[in-house]
Amino acid sequence: MPIWDTIIIGGAAAGLSAAIYTCRKNMKTLVISIDIGGQNLLTEQEENYPGYIELSGPKLMQIFQKQAINFGAEIIFGKATKLEKLDKNFKITMGNGDEYITKTVILSFGKISRPLNVEGENKFMGRGVHTCATCDAPFTKGKNVAVIGGGNSAFEAAELLTKFANKVYLIHRRDEFKADPITVDKIKNKNKVEIIINTIIKKINGEKNVDSLLIENIIDNSTKELKIDSVFIEIGYILDTDWVSNLVKLENRQIITNKKAETITPGIFAAGDVTNSPYKQTITAAAEGAIAGLSSYNYLRSKEGKSTISLDWK
Amino acid sequence: MPIWDTIIIGGAAAGLSAAIYTCRKNMKTLVISIDIGGQNLLTEQEENYPGYIELSGPKLMQIFQKQAINFGAEIIFGKATKLEKLDKNFKITMGNGDEYITKTVILSFGKISRPLNVEGENKFMGRGVHTCATCDAPFTKGKNVAVIGGGNSAFEAAELLTKFANKVYLIHRRDEFKADPITVDKIKNKNKVEIIINTIIKKINGEKNVDSLLIENIIDNSTKELKIDSVFIEIGYILDTDWVSNLVKLENRQIITNKKAETITPGIFAAGDVTNSPYKQTITAAAEGAIAGLSSYNYLRSKEGKSTISLDWK
Repeated sequence: MPIWDTIIIGGAAAGLSAAIYTCRKNMKTLVISIDIGGQNLLTEQEENYPGYIELSGPKLMQIFQKQAINFGAEIIFGKATKLEKLDKNFKITMGNGDEYITKTVILSFGKISRPLNVEGENKFMGRGVHTCATCDAPFTKGKNVAVIGGGNSAFEAAELLTKFANKVYLIHRRDEFKADPITVDKIKNKNKVEIIINTIIKKINGEKNVDSLLIENIIDNSTKELKIDSVFIEIGYILDTDWVSNLVKLENRQIITNKKAETITPGIFAAGDVTNSPYKQTITAAAEGAIAGLSSYNYLRSKEGKSTISLDWK
Repeated sequence: MPIWDTIIIGGAAAGLSAAIYTCRKNMKTLVISIDIGGQNLLTEQEENYPGYIELSGPKLMQIFQKQAINFGAEIIFGKATKLEKLDKNFKITMGNGDEYITKTVILSFGKISRPLNVEGENKFMGRGVHTCATCDAPFTKGKNVAVIGGGNSAFEAAELLTKFANKVYLIHRRDEFKADPITVDKIKNKNKVEIIINTIIKKINGEKNVDSLLIENIIDNSTKELKIDSVFIEIGYILDTDWVSNLVKLENRQIITNKKAETITPGIFAAGDVTNSPYKQTITAAAEGAIAGLSSYNYLRSKEGKSTISLDWK
């Protein structure tokens, strides 16, 4: 198994910027992410990113990604679910059981879609289980899909998916919707859409790909298998930091960092929305990523007993 | 006299980014600077600014400037030389005696060209006294100019200036040059160039514009007035922070800031190369500017007793 110089968990502004900087230091860099762009995917026009008068969030993130890849970063899609400190290195375990060994870790996974916390969710995250309809709807052409949630974002996702998918189930645990009535009505009248209320997800089934959902009606507790190819989870956002709380210090679920993007564990750095940085902007996330990248480089250099002075003073 | 919501001293990555953010908060914003772009003007290709595969430093700074102006920032050229705390506000005095009153201050003037520390230098800074030949050589067409210094940058400035100016004096305090011999020889053979050694500048003379230099030969102490229209100072770079040391805490000449870009004086913020931030990159300077801008906004809001919560969480 190869040992990476750094593994960056999260592929949005902070993580991709970190990758640009670690790759430019010739560090063997892997980015693990459930998507490319994170919250930026939801931004139609970035007007306050210095350097662009106007540019869409997804487009800006594509350029970040291109830069990172040009400089040599590798990217894999999936969800990291376990972080362990070994004797000299760190071990990261994925939702599907894959394992990676790395000398340093940069945590930059931002706010993520609130998970259902059901079996199969992490296993298929980014590969059948999705959290951004804007990003992944085009890949559902001719497929049967489910949207989980009852708010505006769930209904907007469902509407977008009708343009690609064969069949769209909207599954909600209550019989009332938080979404605006006008948004709900728009969806109710679509042939392709079937709304299933008072229903929760018990399990996401599949071998290599998602095959079906095990759903339960909470009124009569009856269960049923619903054949689908993809599921879109649209039940809000959280900072999903519990799984790293063994190695970093949290405050309001945010990872505490200093000005060098260091956490309490040497070799683990954090950047972007996942940290306790005072402002959550694309530009600040990108800078924190750069800082985390440079600090991880300095950490490796200091372990090797080399000086790191003056390299980063432009 | 108008009272500005914020005055930003320094118009490079940090200062212009700060202006973008304060203007977007509808703050009355003035940028005071000796140039636009600072150290970025010396960067032929920025390859590690996330968002651009490749772009020249000056071009990137032009976009920053355009964004700041689009959102309402005003920019004046000149050198601030005194910062005072008044009862409620701050007073900034310029090299030419002009004064400005502001509720908050953002210090973002980066590394600057090492000054000669002679009379007239601050008065004409940016308007006859220059520190970036690449930026300002085109404005010397048909003029008589002086370059001060003996290193490579002085000789490179002199060479560039021969393409525009009528006459170029290169004035150096010693009789030997630090510049590479090949660079020196290139200049020695130019008709337009006159090299004056063992000579220091005593004063920069002028009423509205620079008229002449008072120079002194250090061997025989004779003085002489040299008629010129512009002077380019090329004697290295320093952090010129002495003039703000009454209100901020310094460490190795750098202004100490926290993660919110705050200094020890409430209402005074700092960002970019002028601070003790661990890495000096365009992306980190831009982010620190954004942070300083948002913090200055929050400072004003808290003085007015208004909550600042959640406005900046994207």
